Amino acid sequence: MTEQNKRECVGIGLIGAGFMGRCHANAFTSVSGLFDLPVTPDKQVLADHSADVAASGARALGFARSTDDWRALVADAAVDIVAITAPNVLHEPMALAAIAAGKTVYCEKPLSTTAESALKMTLAAEAAGAVTCVGFNFLRNPMVHLARDIIASGEIGEVTGFRGRHAENYMADPMAPHSFRTDPQGGGAVADIGSHIISMARFLLGPIDEVNADCRTLYPRRPVKPGSLDTKPVEVDDMTHALLRFSSGVSGSLEANWAATGRTMDLSFEVTGSKGAVAFTQERMNELQLYGGSGKQAGFRRIESGPLHPPYGRFCPAPGHHLGFNDLKVIEVADLLIAHTEGGRCYPDFREAWQVQCVVEAMQASSKERCWLKVDGAAS
Amino acid sequence: MTEQNKRECVGIGLIGAGFMGRCHANAFTSVSGLFDLPVTPDKQVLADHSADVAASGARALGFARSTDDWRALVADAAVDIVAITAPNVLHEPMALAAIAAGKTVYCEKPLSTTAESALKMTLAAEAAGAVTCVGFNFLRNPMVHLARDIIASGEIGEVTGFRGRHAENYMADPMAPHSFRTDPQGGGAVADIGSHIISMARFLLGPIDEVNADCRTLYPRRPVKPGSLDTKPVEVDDMTHALLRFSSGVSGSLEANWAATGRTMDLSFEVTGSKGAVAFTQERMNELQLYGGSGKQAGFRRIESGPLHPPYGRFCPAPGHHLGFNDLKVIEVADLLIAHTEGGRCYPDFREAWQVQCVVEAMQASSKERCWLKVDGAAS
Amino acid sequence: MTEQNKRECVGIGLIGAGFMGRCHANAFTSVSGLFDLPVTPDKQVLADHSADVAASGARALGFARSTDDWRALVADAAVDIVAITAPNVLHEPMALAAIAAGKTVYCEKPLSTTAESALKMTLAAEAAGAVTCVGFNFLRNPMVHLARDIIASGEIGEVTGFRGRHAENYMADPMAPHSFRTDPQGGGAVADIGSHIISMARFLLGPIDEVNADCRTLYPRRPVKPGSLDTKPVEVDDMTHALLRFSSGVSGSLEANWAATGRTMDLSFEVTGSKGAVAFTQERMNELQLYGGSGKQAGFRRIESGPLHPPYGRFCPAPGHHLGFNDLKVIEVADLLIAHTEGGRCYPDFREAWQVQCVVEAMQASSKERCWLKVDGAAS
Amino acid sequence: MTEQNKRECVGIGLIGAGFMGRCHANAFTSVSGLFDLPVTPDKQVLADHSADVAASGARALGFARSTDDWRALVADAAVDIVAITAPNVLHEPMALAAIAAGKTVYCEKPLSTTAESALKMTLAAEAAGAVTCVGFNFLRNPMVHLARDIIASGEIGEVTGFRGRHAENYMADPMAPHSFRTDPQGGGAVADIGSHIISMARFLLGPIDEVNADCRTLYPRRPVKPGSLDTKPVEVDDMTHALLRFSSGVSGSLEANWAATGRTMDLSFEVTGSKGAVAFTQERMNELQLYGGSGKQAGFRRIESGPLHPPYGRFCPAPGHHLGFNDLKVIEVADLLIAHTEGGRCYPDFREAWQVQCVVEAMQASSKERCWLKVDGAAS
Repeated sequence: MTEQNKRECVGIGLIGAGFMGRCHANAFTSVSGLFDLPVTPDKQVLADHSADVAASGARALGFARSTDDWRALVADAAVDIVAITAPNVLHEPMALAAIAAGKTVYCEKPLSTTAESALKMTLAAEAAGAVTCVGFNFLRNPMVHLARDIIASGEIGEVTGFRGRHAENYMADPMAPHSFRTDPQGGGAVADIGSHIISMARFLLGPIDEVNADCRTLYPRRPVKPGSLDTKPVEVDDMTHALLRFSSGVSGSLEANWAATGRTMDLSFEVTGSKGAVAFTQERMNELQLYGGSGKQAGFRRIESGPLHPPYGRFCPAPGHHLGFNDLKVIEVADLLIAHTEGGRCYPDFREAWQVQCVVEAMQASSKERCWLKVDGAAS
Repeated sequence: MTEQNKRECVGIGLIGAGFMGRCHANAFTSVSGLFDLPVTPDKQVLADHSADVAASGARALGFARSTDDWRALVADAAVDIVAITAPNVLHEPMALAAIAAGKTVYCEKPLSTTAESALKMTLAAEAAGAVTCVGFNFLRNPMVHLARDIIASGEIGEVTGFRGRHAENYMADPMAPHSFRTDPQGGGAVADIGSHIISMARFLLGPIDEVNADCRTLYPRRPVKPGSLDTKPVEVDDMTHALLRFSSGVSGSLEANWAATGRTMDLSFEVTGSKGAVAFTQERMNELQLYGGSGKQAGFRRIESGPLHPPYGRFCPAPGHHLGFNDLKVIEVADLLIAHTEGGRCYPDFREAWQVQCVVEAMQASSKERCWLKVDGAAS
Repeated sequence: MTEQNKRECVGIGLIGAGFMGRCHANAFTSVSGLFDLPVTPDKQVLADHSADVAASGARALGFARSTDDWRALVADAAVDIVAITAPNVLHEPMALAAIAAGKTVYCEKPLSTTAESALKMTLAAEAAGAVTCVGFNFLRNPMVHLARDIIASGEIGEVTGFRGRHAENYMADPMAPHSFRTDPQGGGAVADIGSHIISMARFLLGPIDEVNADCRTLYPRRPVKPGSLDTKPVEVDDMTHALLRFSSGVSGSLEANWAATGRTMDLSFEVTGSKGAVAFTQERMNELQLYGGSGKQAGFRRIESGPLHPPYGRFCPAPGHHLGFNDLKVIEVADLLIAHTEGGRCYPDFREAWQVQCVVEAMQASSKERCWLKVDGAAS
Repeated sequence: MTEQNKRECVGIGLIGAGFMGRCHANAFTSVSGLFDLPVTPDKQVLADHSADVAASGARALGFARSTDDWRALVADAAVDIVAITAPNVLHEPMALAAIAAGKTVYCEKPLSTTAESALKMTLAAEAAGAVTCVGFNFLRNPMVHLARDIIASGEIGEVTGFRGRHAENYMADPMAPHSFRTDPQGGGAVADIGSHIISMARFLLGPIDEVNADCRTLYPRRPVKPGSLDTKPVEVDDMTHALLRFSSGVSGSLEANWAATGRTMDLSFEVTGSKGAVAFTQERMNELQLYGGSGKQAGFRRIESGPLHPPYGRFCPAPGHHLGFNDLKVIEVADLLIAHTEGGRCYPDFREAWQVQCVVEAMQASSKERCWLKVDGAAS
């Protein structure tokens, strides 16, 4: 038998052992067996504000060490990439420290709690030449890339309209209590999930120049905690409808809604052109609807994901075997590792995430002022 | 054998022998065999601006007489109901004359070219005690009635959001020429088909109080006529996206789009409540999606039209036999004949159609002023 | 005003005033307004075994006379076409009398209760040169014609497989009582609705040469009448699954099921070829799924019915306005009137209906003998 | 920082470095981060008939050692579980050797090339008390378990019918060349993918007692290798349609088809009961259709997978995040590791796989003899 040599390793430091931290860890675990990467991620350190959670998480997820001090993780010489899945308010100090320490930074969305903070992080990263990546994982779907390629190719003609939505139901119950989600710093539905459809709109059609939004708080008070009879006011939106103007001149609309009873993941869009259209919903994430054909055979074609839609083939050589959500995170991590190794720009990086945040804030301001507002930084 | 006696007859005078005129005529022809009505429509007179078209139309459609003078039709003592399918700009004089002559008036949508005109017609009808009906035929769909009943029953809880659309593709081709549709008096897409989704929104959720719209002309010039190289400017919208506030406090959005490549009849809505949701599209007009259930069996249920959804059973005693568009017009005519006979109010009548027009005009003004606008007459 | 002249009329005599009789009558009423036919149907006589039902039906449906003696109807000189919607056991004497009287015969499916009887009727009609038509209405759907045209054109390559079904739920309740449906002469599910998918299979792919079926009675006893506690044995099948070999060599399978809980009209097929496939279900009767495209854009395209799919345009000049079941019957009646006038063969005629019945009986015999059986008359 | 201790490890030996081997390896890699298992798989040895492939595969997939001698792997003391993804003809000697060596055996489907061989393997495993598992991965789908639970609970009443299919298109091209798939030992479509729908039918409804099948070779000759002009006869089926009788008395039908142009993974079923029905297709693997409700709200409900459908929650705590194919393999591996540790029976084990193979062979024999055949071992 032959003993295997270790390939070149990239040390991973992960901050946060919750759902998203686990999701990151599993993606780093799986990626080498699926992608033919120049490097191998090496799970070095897991940090959590609870030392016990960090320790048990490290055991379960295969990290070599654990800590309750994220600064120690950032300072650790064995850590090359810092992955941040901590509460949003901590993203800025963590990312700035990691950038200062010369690390690549992989941060969950939203990049920060304000566009100002996100811009500060972006400028720091760019000044340091740091590779950055933000976890808008739904952009990794091969069917979304297919949609973008079809649009960019001119196949559907001149784009004339956009209709987008991200609707889920996790806050649909009026008795759903306050949590980090309803913290004003979280930004409400428009920030929490609106950012996904905004990032997708930008990915497909470029910058959004102007917005006109109606942010609504559906339930003005919610219980202070699960099961509590005490309630307190809600300061963020549950549902936002917005009109959009893209820099290209295309107009459209968008909805962000975390109280959309019946919807589990209606992250959906329909992009209409003069000759065709593409439609997608994450509820059927392995399908893209493409309108085409002519005469008596025109119609929407349901295209199923398969090996012709890279990097689907990394997961399975045959069509019909569908990707799942966690696979999107693996693709994201693969892209990150390549950018880290080759030094290129990873999409979406801090700058892109800052611009998404500018759109979110423009929507919030537009709703307050009840008028159209230009998006800061749209042209940058 | 037994000779059949004639039942009590209602004389029909139809103005206009085009597509919609024919559709009216066929509905009057069919209705007695399907509905058990107190009266029988008797097709007396068909008017068209062309005497030849009127004559051949009368032969084909079974009218006793024809004329090229609609005033003669209105004055005809044998005519009890005047059905108007003439160009929109003529609706007002025709309806006013018919009302003055003591007739019931059945008018195609839009009621008129301006809300001011529509109000004048409404007030005249109400002063005369005339029965009126406007052809928003899609409201006749049993599945739409089921949706309204479900919402009204409280089954989906407190309504929290509305998302509506009427998208078709008949003007999607940039080379589609000018026609009556692009006449500024026609009002563009927001009036032509936006009025359908507005009437449906009102039917389901009540008055719309405030709007904020973005009306767009996608192709600034179109050929002056089919195949022409000469073009002239387009003054109406091809696509409108709008934010809505209902009088009930519910908010939402709406799209009207006659350049929606790929869409043939996406007259659709999703009404979300705190406990459930209903979704519909006219592209699958015999189905309603209802979200409900609990725990591991929650989901959207696809309800198919059947005899339990009146008046489906008038058309077929068994489920699965689907209604078509022309059947909706038959239902409309049945409702009209009952209102004519019993003297009640027919829904939607002139007043309702005027209020729809107020919403259309508020959207157009809102788009020009780029701000939220109150809808005139919303509370009336 | 101009008085209209009557066009050349064809006298209609209709036997049976139940659901299907009413459906025929309404189709005769509507057809002239929709199709540009050389003749106009003139509803002369309605017969029913109850004189009262016949009389009230004639009033409601617009027949000039009524009778409780179908022989009088057949003998009536004013009747040119005899439409038969009476119980199946009476089809033979009625049709033979009508043929003998020189009439065109329009008979509901099944043509008769046995293939032997159906053949007798076929031979009589052919000897007399009578125009005949049998009411397999689902064949009139423009989307089914589109499917056949696509198959015939070779677009999906060499046909390799067929999968068909007609599933409804009207006998799904074990307490659904005996009725004419469970009469052994009715032939059970395989005859009642299996005949529809058999006729469609033949329409699409030609004769069926050999069958191997499993006819099952799901509920061996049913109440003797609605609500009764008395039960008696059921002698017919509720559900049949069958293997098929077409004369062309294509093989496949078929299900007929009237106890298919959840299915209202799953009259569906998937025809697979070496290069493409078409799929259809009557539950979405205005859509056809066509597999095509290549590379990363291959998929099933959802084609919606529209004016490019004749005779849809007879009902509406724009797509998206969907046909309903009753429209299919109007198309059938239009085809019948043309064949009657021009003297051509109407499809499906008595011969075709006899051949369908041969397939049904071969399935029943095959199930009893538990083996493959050749279909009588398949090659004729 | 805290150094992590290794948990109790289970040594994995994997034979085969192709698609399915890689899929196994990745599942072993991922499972510990997702499931809270009593043991941790430790990837010890990867064997392939090519030493180079084995060595590079071991590097890529994280195995400690590699070999081109599967007997060495089986004999390796560090190996506790032998995973077999080698060609089918080798399954028997490999499994027997592993059983003799006291290992747990995890074998890809089909268990072997004949039912006789599969029975031999089964008896050997049972005699040795070996834990065994066969890779019918589609059974791991939470939505399939939900279907089974619903059926077992009686919610859909007495089961009355089954309609199943596994249709893909990988051999639809007549020019698709011979390969291991068309080797008579492979058993053709009925064995290759028919086995999946057979295993699912058994999982849902219990043993299949009798079959009546029509196995067809659509293209009698295929190229000897890719691009070759030389062809040779095909001895296996491309498409099989079969009638089924379950031991419970339920009847139904089934199709296996690897030339189903347009279908990528139509592993689908509809199970009909006296009160409801469930329908599923792997093409939308995160959805189950359940018919229920009553009166005007009856219909098929689309249930989406979520944390209430274990073990979905292992992959994501929120609904709408969809599982993919590779996740099913992770679930399979988790079940295997639990059975290995706790010593229980894993489903489906060798005995179950043998019984599936008995159904396949009964179908093949039935087709040759053109009659119904009892399934050997159905009752065992």
